[in-house]
Amino acid sequence: MLNLKVSVIGSGNWGSAIAKIVAENAAENRDMFETDVRMWVFEELVAGQKLTEIINTQHENVKYLPGIKLPSNVVAVPDLLDAVEDANLLVFNVPHQFLPRICSQLKGKVPSTVRAVSCIKGVEVSGDGITIIADYISQELGIYCGALSGANLAPEVAQEKFSETTIAYKVPDPSDSIDARVVRTLFHRPYFHVNVVADVAGVSLCGALKNIVALASGFVDGMAWGDNAKAAIIRRGLLEMTKFGREFFPECKASTFTEESCGVADVITSCSGGRNNKLGAALIKTRRPIFELEEELLKGQKAQGVTTAQEVHEFLERRGKLEDFPLFTAVHDIIFSGLDSYALPQILEDVEQKY
Amino acid sequence: MLNLKVSVIGSGNWGSAIAKIVAENAAENRDMFETDVRMWVFEELVAGQKLTEIINTQHENVKYLPGIKLPSNVVAVPDLLDAVEDANLLVFNVPHQFLPRICSQLKGKVPSTVRAVSCIKGVEVSGDGITIIADYISQELGIYCGALSGANLAPEVAQEKFSETTIAYKVPDPSDSIDARVVRTLFHRPYFHVNVVADVAGVSLCGALKNIVALASGFVDGMAWGDNAKAAIIRRGLLEMTKFGREFFPECKASTFTEESCGVADVITSCSGGRNNKLGAALIKTRRPIFELEEELLKGQKAQGVTTAQEVHEFLERRGKLEDFPLFTAVHDIIFSGLDSYALPQILEDVEQKY
Repeated sequence: MLNLKVSVIGSGNWGSAIAKIVAENAAENRDMFETDVRMWVFEELVAGQKLTEIINTQHENVKYLPGIKLPSNVVAVPDLLDAVEDANLLVFNVPHQFLPRICSQLKGKVPSTVRAVSCIKGVEVSGDGITIIADYISQELGIYCGALSGANLAPEVAQEKFSETTIAYKVPDPSDSIDARVVRTLFHRPYFHVNVVADVAGVSLCGALKNIVALASGFVDGMAWGDNAKAAIIRRGLLEMTKFGREFFPECKASTFTEESCGVADVITSCSGGRNNKLGAALIKTRRPIFELEEELLKGQKAQGVTTAQEVHEFLERRGKLEDFPLFTAVHDIIFSGLDSYALPQILEDVEQKY
Repeated sequence: MLNLKVSVIGSGNWGSAIAKIVAENAAENRDMFETDVRMWVFEELVAGQKLTEIINTQHENVKYLPGIKLPSNVVAVPDLLDAVEDANLLVFNVPHQFLPRICSQLKGKVPSTVRAVSCIKGVEVSGDGITIIADYISQELGIYCGALSGANLAPEVAQEKFSETTIAYKVPDPSDSIDARVVRTLFHRPYFHVNVVADVAGVSLCGALKNIVALASGFVDGMAWGDNAKAAIIRRGLLEMTKFGREFFPECKASTFTEESCGVADVITSCSGGRNNKLGAALIKTRRPIFELEEELLKGQKAQGVTTAQEVHEFLERRGKLEDFPLFTAVHDIIFSGLDSYALPQILEDVEQKY
C-alpha cells in the first residue's frame, strides 16, 4: 500500500482534463493512490459563485472545461499550500507565466521526497541558454520533476477520444517508490495511452520547437503549395528539432523526436490546424505585422511559436549556429525580416547535404 | 563527358512528371547526359491522333498529364525496344501490373552495364515472401536497379510545387560511373529535392506499407475521433512499418522510415486524404463491402492498401507474427472479419509495451 496523495496544480482546460484522468486512475488503483485528488484552482467568481464550490458540488469546471463531468474525487482547493499539503506527487499544469510565482510560494514547503510531473509544455529560451521547465521546477523546489507532452488537444482528451502521450520520468534512484510504473499507472487510461521514456530534455524541447514547425507549415498553407510541400516541411522541421536537441542537449535521444507522441505525432497535430499553423498561413496571405494578426486571430491568446522562433533565433545567433538550422532561421526571417517565403525551397536546398 | 542516354519507361501522370524532371536535368547537365530523353508511351489514339505524335509535336501528354508543358527534349517512342536501345539509364514508371510483361520483352536485350531506377512504389507480397520491385527488375534484366519513393502526388510535382523524394541507389562497385551523384543530378530539381540513401528494401517497403496505415487513418476519420487519434494512428503505423522492415529485411535502416521523405513524409501525405484514407473512412461510415465501395469511390482505380493489407496479413500469419503487428492485423480484420474499429485503442494497448 503506497497510499500516495496526488495534487494537480492548475485547472485550465488541460489542467482539468488531466485532473479527470488522474482522479479516474486514483479511484481505480487504491493500492497505490489515495482516492481524493486535490486540484488547486485559482479562485474566481462565476455568476456570483466561487469556482471551487461549483467544481466540488456540480463536478464540472463550468468556466474552463464546460460540458465535461469530473470524477467526484477531484477536490478543488483554492489555497495553493492547502492543495499540496502532505502530497507525494505534484502534477503541474498552469500557464507558463504563472509558474515562477507558484514555485516561489511553494519553495521550502515541499519535502525532497515529493515527486512531480510537469504538463507545462516547453522550455524557456534566451540568448544565454535554455531552461527546461521540469528542471526549473526541480531546482526551485528541490524535488525530482518529469515532463508530460504529446499530441493532446485538451478538449479531445476530455471527451475521451483516443490519444497517446509521452512522459519523461526517470528518478535518479531506481529504488524510489514513486517510479515509472507508478507514474504510468497514474496517467494511463484506455483512451489516453502513456509511453514512459527517460529523456526529459527531449520531451520538453519537442513541446516548444514544434510550434516553429507549425508556423512553417502555415506558410505552406498560405502559399497553397499542397500536401507534398507540407509533408516536406514537417519532415525537415522534425529533423531540425532532432538536430537542435542532439546538439545542445547531448543526452537527448533522436527517437524521442522521431518516434514518440511528443515528437512526430504532436508535430503532425500542430501542423494540421493549431494556432501557430493558422497564424503562419494568415501572415503569408496578408503580410501584415505578426502581432496585429495574432491579436485579431487568436483574440488575446498567444501563438507560442512566434516567441519561440525569436528566442531560438537569438540563442542560435549568439552561438554562430544559424546556418545549421535553416528552417528555424527562415521562419524567424519570414516573420521579422521580410524574407520571401517562396525562397524556402532554395534555402533548404543549400544546406540539405549537411543533415 | 559521360553522355549517358536516359529512357523513361512509362507515361502515366507520374511517368510523365518524372520524364519532365529528367529531361530538364538532362538539358542542363550536358557533361553528364545526352539531351534527348526517350519516353516509352503505350500507343493509343486520342481524338484520332497518335499519343506519341501529340507529345512530340505539342509537348504535352494531353491524356495523362493535361495542362503541363513537357520539355521539347522528351521524345515519345511507341516501341519499347526502340525506346531503350543503347540507353545507359532506365527509369521504370509503369503501373505495377504491366511490369512482368515489360521485363519479359526486355529480357536479354539490356547490357549488364545499364543502371535503372524504379519509380514504381511498393513490393509484391505473398504468403511465401516479399519481392522488392527494384530487385525483381534487377533479377529479370540482370542489371542494378534502385528505387525512388517519396511524398510525391504527381500533379503537384508536375506543377513544380515544392516536394522532396528519396532515392535508394547504391551500386555494388563504388567506381561505377553511374553512381549516386549521377542519379541525384538526374532527378534533383529546385522544386524536387532528392535525398539518396542506400536502403532499397526500406524505401520500397515504405511505399507499400504506408497504404495500410492510410486505411487506418481513414478509420479514424470515419469515427470522427479527431486530430490526436489521427496522429496516434500515424505514429503507431510508422513504428509498425519500421518493425516490419527491420524484422524481415535486417539490412533496412529505421531512419529510412522515420526520417526520409519515403517514410514519415509519405505517410503523412497519404493519411491526409489519399485514396486509401478516403476508402477507410467510407468503410467505417457505411460498413458496406470494401470492393463495392472501392468501385464506387475510385471509379475503377485501386486503393493499393486493401490488397497490401491482405497480402501482409497472409505473410504474417504464415510466420506466426500477427500479434507483433496489431495495427496491420486490425486493419485487415476491420475490413475482412467485421472487427469493430472502436476496439482499436484496446488492441493497441494490449501490445504497446512490445515495441
